[in-house]
Amino acid sequence: MTAVVIAVGSELLRPGRRDTNGDWLVERLLDLGIETRWRSAVDDDVERIARLIATAWKDAGVVLLTGGLGPTEDDRTRDALAVAFDAPLTRDPAMTRWITSMFSARGRVAGPRQWRQADRPQGADWIENALGSAPGLLVERDGRVLAALPGVPAEMKAMFSATVAPRLAAAGGGALARETLRIAGRPESWVDEVVRDLYGTRGTETTILASPGSVELLVTARGADEAEARARLAALTGAMRARLGIDLFGSNEETLAGVVGHLLAARGATVAVAESCTGGLLGAAFTEVAGSSAWFRGGIVGYADDVKSSLAGVPAALIREHGAVSEAVARALAEGARAACSADFGLGVTGVAGPGGGTADKPVGTVHLALADDGAGRTLKLDWPGDRELIRKRAVTVALDLLRRRLLA
Amino acid sequence: MTAVVIAVGSELLRPGRRDTNGDWLVERLLDLGIETRWRSAVDDDVERIARLIATAWKDAGVVLLTGGLGPTEDDRTRDALAVAFDAPLTRDPAMTRWITSMFSARGRVAGPRQWRQADRPQGADWIENALGSAPGLLVERDGRVLAALPGVPAEMKAMFSATVAPRLAAAGGGALARETLRIAGRPESWVDEVVRDLYGTRGTETTILASPGSVELLVTARGADEAEARARLAALTGAMRARLGIDLFGSNEETLAGVVGHLLAARGATVAVAESCTGGLLGAAFTEVAGSSAWFRGGIVGYADDVKSSLAGVPAALIREHGAVSEAVARALAEGARAACSADFGLGVTGVAGPGGGTADKPVGTVHLALADDGAGRTLKLDWPGDRELIRKRAVTVALDLLRRRLLA
Repeated sequence: MTAVVIAVGSELLRPGRRDTNGDWLVERLLDLGIETRWRSAVDDDVERIARLIATAWKDAGVVLLTGGLGPTEDDRTRDALAVAFDAPLTRDPAMTRWITSMFSARGRVAGPRQWRQADRPQGADWIENALGSAPGLLVERDGRVLAALPGVPAEMKAMFSATVAPRLAAAGGGALARETLRIAGRPESWVDEVVRDLYGTRGTETTILASPGSVELLVTARGADEAEARARLAALTGAMRARLGIDLFGSNEETLAGVVGHLLAARGATVAVAESCTGGLLGAAFTEVAGSSAWFRGGIVGYADDVKSSLAGVPAALIREHGAVSEAVARALAEGARAACSADFGLGVTGVAGPGGGTADKPVGTVHLALADDGAGRTLKLDWPGDRELIRKRAVTVALDLLRRRLLA
Repeated sequence: MTAVVIAVGSELLRPGRRDTNGDWLVERLLDLGIETRWRSAVDDDVERIARLIATAWKDAGVVLLTGGLGPTEDDRTRDALAVAFDAPLTRDPAMTRWITSMFSARGRVAGPRQWRQADRPQGADWIENALGSAPGLLVERDGRVLAALPGVPAEMKAMFSATVAPRLAAAGGGALARETLRIAGRPESWVDEVVRDLYGTRGTETTILASPGSVELLVTARGADEAEARARLAALTGAMRARLGIDLFGSNEETLAGVVGHLLAARGATVAVAESCTGGLLGAAFTEVAGSSAWFRGGIVGYADDVKSSLAGVPAALIREHGAVSEAVARALAEGARAACSADFGLGVTGVAGPGGGTADKPVGTVHLALADDGAGRTLKLDWPGDRELIRKRAVTVALDLLRRRLLA
């Protein structure tokens, strides 16, 4: 089965707005084995919404609409459904009473404005809204399903899960299973090369996505039922895992900082940081993990060179000799963090994030990373270009991965 | 004039993917005075793409397509245009030669696969691609314009700016001007209350957006020409500025950290931080600003209590007496940051970000902020609920704003 997802609301066409309801529905549909063929965001115009509904109704077995079901003049989804299905709106007396009673239960009075929410096109059923006053609408015809849900995310999600999803699961042919594999410390082209010949595996689909310093493989598998879909998924991701080895750091919602935290917690160890160019981002990544106080001690942001010396104990002479962006200073930062915060491991980061500050010798993108432990530690140099944000994020990811590999060694 | 924007590519319907080309085009169109009525992302299916093109062609004077113009079997935009306009594809011999010469200039050989890019529907013109081998397609008919551009963002943007935008500007009726006003330290409902009666100002449109700790007003004004649009915009935003006063911190792309940085630089002053629950995020926000080394000294992440004491000089007795999350400790952190980093101002943050760690006395969301200066300083307490990410981001924004207000006082 296939789907079309349409979000209604002029505000969704404003700069900076995103149709997060659509994002959510596309994912939930995939969980039900239903792939979305197209999705749209459309303004509050009856004719345009109706034309998109009519086009969608030709294209897919499932059509999901969000928004435009409230009581105001701007809420036009009901009218658009009436136009698209050529089915006049009639006001449902039972729903009118329910809306009135819902309002009076909250000490408010419902009038003609609110009663508009009791209008529905002939042949449509109500979808109950347990959290708000705007009911949804359901049209089932010729094996096709259309559901119109409110734009308020909490109401939309509750109604989809309670009413729409079970109906789609019952009607669905086949099932999908999916998993995201997460890789650090390798470029996208390397990952692509390693797993590329598996992309064509029957009944599966793989998408590769790159983030600063990490790569994701989004794998979905289709089967006649959930068991078959899961078996196919497990076979394919198993093959990928075997090839990726230690470069694979986790799956699905796991984060690199979270994985490192688990490894630290498992051995009762702690970490501290001393950052220059990342300015606190590495500490922020560690402390994004709930419960990180069990293994994250703290850190130093040594942005000015004399702060590197006074707080992290980096000798001023070392900075003079090698420059602030150097392996020697990264190592001293890592050791300083470890000592100053009494941690088992210390991470040090120093680099040129740009846009200014680059030299022929140390261009923008040069980052030195160091790990201090009870032995010789480890160091790493990055020299890939990028903008300030990319260079900083990549440095954080690679620093986390440096510690992860040390903990697995 | 109005527009429809359609992004072609099955990968855009995968979870986690976003149609960033569409985001960009919607903004550029607004700059040209053209509002987008709907936008879509559609998979690589000729019939579906063609149906959306046909629907769009009825709905708007401008239709922009991105993607599906490459040499592979998956690239179906050309075929879809042929179906939508009932105009057979013909291969352009001059374009075939251009593609061949472009490939040979790069030491590669073009074959039938690449020559597909020389196919165009009858009646369509080429849009030159200076950066790649996939030309764009332009259809102009009855005062309407359709442009199909490649999906590679750099190529798409260059072609839109060089060829499509001038054509739309010439054909456009009227102009738009826009500005984003940024407010900190006030909830969305307060901002809404203060400016609400201005929303209806003739020829303008205002959208309100909330972020953790800040609020944005997106204002657009329409005019017969650019001068009129700008005058209307200036009148409305001027009225809003007057009402918002010091709560307005900047406009358009300005960030709170950037504004604070300018204020610090203007008086030759510096700042340092000592963070607990934000774990480095506040330092990261300051150092996101290019050139921040001129006024940001560094900081301490005192996640463990003994690190608060050893690095930021917070007396252990103070923590025992008041608890780590307290006004007294926030103040000591701010003073410690100021002293340890030899800065003019110090900011201290300590709180319960959750999900664990809350008590009846200090529930999740309790955050104490302090500013240290050469006088009595300032403190502030937040006690709004939220998830870990929201609480941390809000704390950073409010801390930045605390310093901004001090610098303006």
